[in-house]
Amino acid sequence: MIRLIGFDLDDTLFDATELATQARIGGLKKIQECGLNYSLQEGINGLFEIVKEFGSNYTKHYDTLLKRMKNDPIKYEITMPDFKIPKYIAAGIMGYHDVKVKKIKPFKDVMDCLVDLQKIGYQIILISDGRAIKQYEKLHRLNILHFFTEIFISEEVGLKKPDPEFFNYCLREMDVLPSETVYIGDRMDRDIEPANSIGINTVLIHRKGKYDPIINGKKYRYQADREISSLEELMPFVKSIS
Amino acid sequence: MIRLIGFDLDDTLFDATELATQARIGGLKKIQECGLNYSLQEGINGLFEIVKEFGSNYTKHYDTLLKRMKNDPIKYEITMPDFKIPKYIAAGIMGYHDVKVKKIKPFKDVMDCLVDLQKIGYQIILISDGRAIKQYEKLHRLNILHFFTEIFISEEVGLKKPDPEFFNYCLREMDVLPSETVYIGDRMDRDIEPANSIGINTVLIHRKGKYDPIINGKKYRYQADREISSLEELMPFVKSIS
Repeated sequence: MIRLIGFDLDDTLFDATELATQARIGGLKKIQECGLNYSLQEGINGLFEIVKEFGSNYTKHYDTLLKRMKNDPIKYEITMPDFKIPKYIAAGIMGYHDVKVKKIKPFKDVMDCLVDLQKIGYQIILISDGRAIKQYEKLHRLNILHFFTEIFISEEVGLKKPDPEFFNYCLREMDVLPSETVYIGDRMDRDIEPANSIGINTVLIHRKGKYDPIINGKKYRYQADREISSLEELMPFVKSIS
Repeated sequence: MIRLIGFDLDDTLFDATELATQARIGGLKKIQECGLNYSLQEGINGLFEIVKEFGSNYTKHYDTLLKRMKNDPIKYEITMPDFKIPKYIAAGIMGYHDVKVKKIKPFKDVMDCLVDLQKIGYQIILISDGRAIKQYEKLHRLNILHFFTEIFISEEVGLKKPDPEFFNYCLREMDVLPSETVYIGDRMDRDIEPANSIGINTVLIHRKGKYDPIINGKKYRYQADREISSLEELMPFVKSIS
């Protein structure tokens, strides 16, 4: 008997990767709009290098990029190398933020799925890695916060994926057994493997991002109990094992 | 001969005090919308106490308020004291930010004044205290950045009001004499006194905020060369001394 449905957040319920890309480019374009002439392509390359180098939660992406631009105006095709950095950091952050706020939306199969699960009376929880305030902001802006009985964010819990203990902790808090739980995520390594390992029923959703085994072509030693390409396929699966 | 017009930013070119108040209340209301029931009036009192205690550039206003709420649910009339703090910090920050972005606008006498000054060929600069990125973001969102030949923010310069050296530095950078300069601000202590002291022509604008001598009733040992209640009165003054 299934009682609990757990979801991953980023790239499972909304297109986090694409949104971050769009927002970063939005920031770069805003810097141009505000008067700094440079090669957008070099700017994109430079920014994505920095994201790779310092991680996506680093708070000084644009600071670092603009310093590098100032140090190497030729590479970035900057005609006026004597520019003021904070002016353009502000433009970058503003452009980034405005795109993020404006464009964040759930994948189109999400709302119906959450409504249907709730109608039947399943408890719905979220199990997500990340910084608590950032994850909650996403949930607020996606307007899906009210669907969840409980929200577990790694920063708050003090455990993170792929540690199976993170999943164990959530289930203990909910007083539900792994066999009574279905967990849906987009990543084999961080969602499916740890949830599998403690006996949760796992569903891999193909979102065609870089972690999708169809896209990255990786082979894994384990598999999800079910693979789906839309959340429309979730309810039939849940019913089939209930 | 007047060549340079300098402006203060906060509460001179836009209503910074009122905007901050509205944004803070916007954050408090968003926290309620997201499910935390508490007395809005107590929330407002609590938040404004924290702003007074830690300053307006402190980054943990809502964190601190929510911790205090949790510690004293009776005072804040909270019915469910076992709430998750990060969820509501996110709501508060989001509500605050959304109001700030949506409602920031120049005082209604600003655009005409800047356009007219620019047409005549005066150089226009900004001399403002604050954190560089925050001040630039305001200028971007107010859509007035392009009017200024130069922008001097205390954090970038390493000097701040009421140090007259901050004003001296800006004038040296612009290669303009104090007697060729008019500076407009809303505060006697931070704008008028230091600018006066080095011989700049000073204009006090009455914006009816808490620093307005008409409102706070304070007596000062010095006075501005001109007091105005709208920027419409600026150009006639500048012409009269040119």
